[in-house]
Order: sequence, then structure tokens, then C-alpha cells
Amino acid sequence: MMGTGKGTAAPRSALLDVLNRKPAQRRPIWFMRQAGRYLPEYRAVREKAGSFLDLCYNPELAAEVTVQPLRRYDLDAAILFADILVVPHAMGLPVTFAEGEGPVLGTVRSREDLDRLRQVAGTYEVNQVCRTVSLTRAQLAPNQALIGFCGAPWTVASYMVGGGSSDRVMAKVAAYQRQPWFCALIDRLVKESVDYLSAQGDAGAQAVQIFDSWAGDLVGTELEEFVMKPVADIVAGVKERHPALPIIVFARGVGMAQYKAAAIPGANAIGVETEFGLADLPKDVVVQGNLDPVALLAGSEVVAREVGRICSSIDRQRHIFNLGHGIRLGTDPSVVGAVVEAVRRHDE
Amino acid sequence: MMGTGKGTAAPRSALLDVLNRKPAQRRPIWFMRQAGRYLPEYRAVREKAGSFLDLCYNPELAAEVTVQPLRRYDLDAAILFADILVVPHAMGLPVTFAEGEGPVLGTVRSREDLDRLRQVAGTYEVNQVCRTVSLTRAQLAPNQALIGFCGAPWTVASYMVGGGSSDRVMAKVAAYQRQPWFCALIDRLVKESVDYLSAQGDAGAQAVQIFDSWAGDLVGTELEEFVMKPVADIVAGVKERHPALPIIVFARGVGMAQYKAAAIPGANAIGVETEFGLADLPKDVVVQGNLDPVALLAGSEVVAREVGRICSSIDRQRHIFNLGHGIRLGTDPSVVGAVVEAVRRHDE
Repeated sequence: MMGTGKGTAAPRSALLDVLNRKPAQRRPIWFMRQAGRYLPEYRAVREKAGSFLDLCYNPELAAEVTVQPLRRYDLDAAILFADILVVPHAMGLPVTFAEGEGPVLGTVRSREDLDRLRQVAGTYEVNQVCRTVSLTRAQLAPNQALIGFCGAPWTVASYMVGGGSSDRVMAKVAAYQRQPWFCALIDRLVKESVDYLSAQGDAGAQAVQIFDSWAGDLVGTELEEFVMKPVADIVAGVKERHPALPIIVFARGVGMAQYKAAAIPGANAIGVETEFGLADLPKDVVVQGNLDPVALLAGSEVVAREVGRICSSIDRQRHIFNLGHGIRLGTDPSVVGAVVEAVRRHDE
Repeated sequence: MMGTGKGTAAPRSALLDVLNRKPAQRRPIWFMRQAGRYLPEYRAVREKAGSFLDLCYNPELAAEVTVQPLRRYDLDAAILFADILVVPHAMGLPVTFAEGEGPVLGTVRSREDLDRLRQVAGTYEVNQVCRTVSLTRAQLAPNQALIGFCGAPWTVASYMVGGGSSDRVMAKVAAYQRQPWFCALIDRLVKESVDYLSAQGDAGAQAVQIFDSWAGDLVGTELEEFVMKPVADIVAGVKERHPALPIIVFARGVGMAQYKAAAIPGANAIGVETEFGLADLPKDVVVQGNLDPVALLAGSEVVAREVGRICSSIDRQRHIFNLGHGIRLGTDPSVVGAVVEAVRRHDE
């Protein structure tokens, strides 16, 4: 079922309206890891595609899995099917995904390792992702926005330093020690991310999100230097080339005090994880989140209650409904539909 | 090196003084997972003891590993060597620890499973732990306080429901669904924890800590109902029997707003994890924490800087210096000594 807006009004994008602080026709909804293994139609495409990265670099199939959820659900946005490790991969680092396991990467742990890496602009990997953006945009209705994305420097660097491990200890040690090669890696990722997001904007992405899954790892000056400032630099760099491109920053786990202290001036919205207490919600920014993906495993009744709690806490003109973390494998697709219906019903 | 206080003043416990809001001679220091695999003398005892739980239930050896760190470092407290899974184990649930792996537990997923479990008071397991408390207390100097502990109901229940898995999804689903057996399990753990901590107090523990490692899992009414209220009930229950026994609550990841909202009236101190921003620090409570254990892997220079940052942020009369998480395997014991020295130097 394709959402096309109600009545005879022009089919505006609710997502873009909220991001631009314009009156929106409804509360926009999209889901993190919107496409993926919880959907049988995704699994069917995935089997044809080969590896996970093969699917990311196959524009026809990647566009297909990007739009699949919008055929099922009345959503306000599609999120590009790609991975935060596209940037290190495009830089020349070997990246593999074993099914059901985390990624395995070549490592960057010295200035020499860093100097071996190339620029992402114009690489096969980035070009293919940008083709996916164009193909997807052409398949979406005017009220369905296309969101591009990249990983934030801290999170991406933690995988590059740790060889794909989700234990960020090596990156944290390098950050604490202010290793010159690590500082240079962060700077480099800022530049490559600006190029990557700008290329997505050129190709037709109408908003972009910066995913900083491990932002909550650091505190104090390390948080400022290695997490918040690099993200602010990306926002500024992208806005320089695409002043009208809205940017969502999802710095998971940093807490409101840090969001405020960091003051990323150009960001149009902040994403907040499930554990972010709604009592801490700022009154002056657009907030995206934060339904617990585990609530979807607890059934439609729980979902309705949780949706009500969240939607009652945030004015729909400054809220983008989303999950606080990615959809879990094993989620019943019909419960995802129940979430959408519960949000729509709440706002009626 | 045994710390015995300075000068001719009576050897008071700095930890107890801070917990009781009395002027303390110095900033108290202890470390989470103070005894353990990073110490060669611990590993030597561990080899003699058999399994991890065998060591917990061997009072002589458990007391030995409890006091080992105080022979090396000038610390203000010893923390009982035990495990948060002693309570479910004493209740009759099979618990095993595979070396280097997480625990494996029998599961509780119904009213019948719960009804099969016995009370912990007077069990072999609890009696042995209490003997460890007595033996340890007898080996400590007057200025070295002995801290007992238990796990909080939410964290312990998550292991009981999940069979030892650190993925709390099954417990979260049960909480969201308000499963009657799950609510009863939480209530039961409150009662058993009160008995367990009271027994430790009877045996000579001079303060107790409630560890809620996964407190940050829940939000809203679930956080209130399944995390904060049960902990508050334990505090109240223990204070009824031991009004003068100080209690530290370490509800990892709940954030300041939640600590404030929950208002655990009887708690003498709150523990805060590394990621808790010092900007959020309350002005009116005793705080324990929060050096990053990863900083200890980055060497003495980083440690000195981080200690300075933390100690400058918190008045030493209301601060218990500690790590924000447990000491990591592979930590150089000499760096632990450097932390203690850095704290002492800072306060000189």
C-alpha cells in the first residue's frame, strides 16, 4: 500500500516538512533498518544478490529492497540500503560480512595504514551507492522522502581500528592517547563523509542521517574532540555544498546534556535511542525516535501502549517517529504495520 | 602496603565517613571487580579453588582474594568476593561459569518455575558467603571498610529468564507484557535480596552495594516498576533491619533524570558508569565512580589526566573514587597503583 497523502492537498513530504520546521500534514514515520532480514521479500532478493556488500553495490537490487517496506507500510521515508562500512571499503579497506556474524575489516593502526587509503569520491563503491539513490528516488512518490546516510567518524574509526570488532577498546585507547594517526583518521573520515553525503545529495537524497552508534563511548574532551566536533564538521561541510539538505544526527547514548553542550548548529533533528528518557527531551529541536524494537516482539497491545506513551510526549510537529535501535531479526512484519497504524490512530 | 591512615588520629574509615556525610580524612577509593583475573595472586588461588562458584563458597580462599588487592594498594575498602548469581543459585537454580564465557543458568519462565525456588536465608550458599564476610572483616584494618553486595532484581531476573544470556530480550518482553510470573519473580528477588544483604550485614559487612548493571535497559513505567521501585524496596527493607548500614545503588545507564525521579530515599550514594556525563552530576548526593577502565589500558599518563578531570569535578567529601565499569582483563596491576597515587596526589 503506497501512502500518497490525504485529500486534494499537494503531496508534500511530512518528513521534510518536520525537518524544515514547516507545518506537516502528519507525524512522519520511518524505521531504522527498515529493509532487512525480518522481511521475506528482502531475504528473497538477498539470496539472489550474493554477499551483503554485493547487494549494497547492485543499484537495481538495492533500490528494490529500499522501496520494499514502503509497499507494505504507509511510511513517510525510505532509507537508502547501504552500510556504514561502505566508506572504509571505498577507501580501500577489505570488508567482509559473515552471515550472522559481525563484519571483518582490514585494520588501520598507523599513519602508514592511513596513507594507503584512497579518497572515496568517484570510486566504484560510492558511484554504485549513488546509482541506488537515483534509482530509488525515481520509484518513490512525492510524499515519500529518500534518506541517505553515513556512519560518524568515531563509530567508523572504531571498526577500522578494531578490525570490525564491536569492542571499541583499541579505538578508545588510541583516542585517550591522542595518537596522531588516530586524530588524522578522524579528520580524514570527516572529509570522506562530507564527500560521500554530498554525492548522495547530488544523486537525489532529500535528507541524510549521520549514524554514531557508539557515540556514547566517550565523555569529556574525548567526546567533544572525537565524536561531537567531527559530526559538527560533517554537518557544516555538507551544508556548505547542500544548504537545503536536512541532516539528522543520531549520536546514540550521548544524553541530552552532551547534545546541548555540543550544539551542532546545522543539524535539523537529533535521533535518540530507546534508553533516552523522554523526561530529558529538549523543547526546541526536532527529535527522532525512540520506540524499543523489543516492544515489537511483545505484540500489538504493548506496541499500542508504547506508541501512545511516546507520541503523547512529543508534539508531532517536531517528532519523527522511529525505533530507538534497529528492527530485530524475528520481528513479525504485521507488528511493524501495527506500529504505523497506532501512530496514525494516536494523531487522529 | 596496608593503608592505616595518617598521623595520630583514630583510624576512621574514609568510605564510611563519606557515606555517612561526615568529614572524611581522604577521598575513599575502591575498584569494581577489585579482586580478579588481572592479578597474578588471584589467578594462583583460582587455580586451587576449582570453579568460579567453588571459590565463592570457599570462605578461606574467597576472603584471601578479597583482601589481596589491599595488600598491593592503599585502598579504603574491600569488596566481598562473590557474584550476583549467588542469589539465584542459592534459590536452587543451576548456575555454571565456563571460563572466558558468560554464565549458564537454569531458566525461570513461568509461575511453576518460580514456585520451585527456595528461600536463600540459611542456605549453604548464603552461609558460606557470610562466613567469607566474617573472615574478611577480621583480616582488615579499622580504616578499611568491607562492602557486601547483591545484584538488583531487574539484572538478576534478566539472567534467570534468559538462561544467563546477556541479551535481555526475553526479560524485556516479559516486562512489557506485565507477565504475572515475571512481576512475582521481581517481588521475590526483592525479598531474597533483603534477606541476603541483611545476612551480610549481620556477618560484618559495613556497607552494601546493589549492582543493577542493566538498569538502563528500560524506560518509563517499566523502568519505574521493574528497576527503580524494586531497588528502593530493597533499600527500605535492609534499612529496617540495619538502619545504620550504608547502601550504594549502582543503576548503570539510567541517567540523572531517572535517578532523581526515582528518589531512592535511603540510598547513601549512587554509582555512575563511565558514560555518565559529569555535567549531569547532582550537587546533593554522594557519587561513586567513574574512571573508564579502558583508560587504564592507555597508560599512567592518560590515567593521571583522567583522574584529575574526575577529581576536579567532584568535591572529595561527597565522592567515592571508583571505576565506571569493572577492571578489564589485561590491565597492568602497576597502572591500578598509578590510579591510587594519582587520586592521592590530586587531593594533597
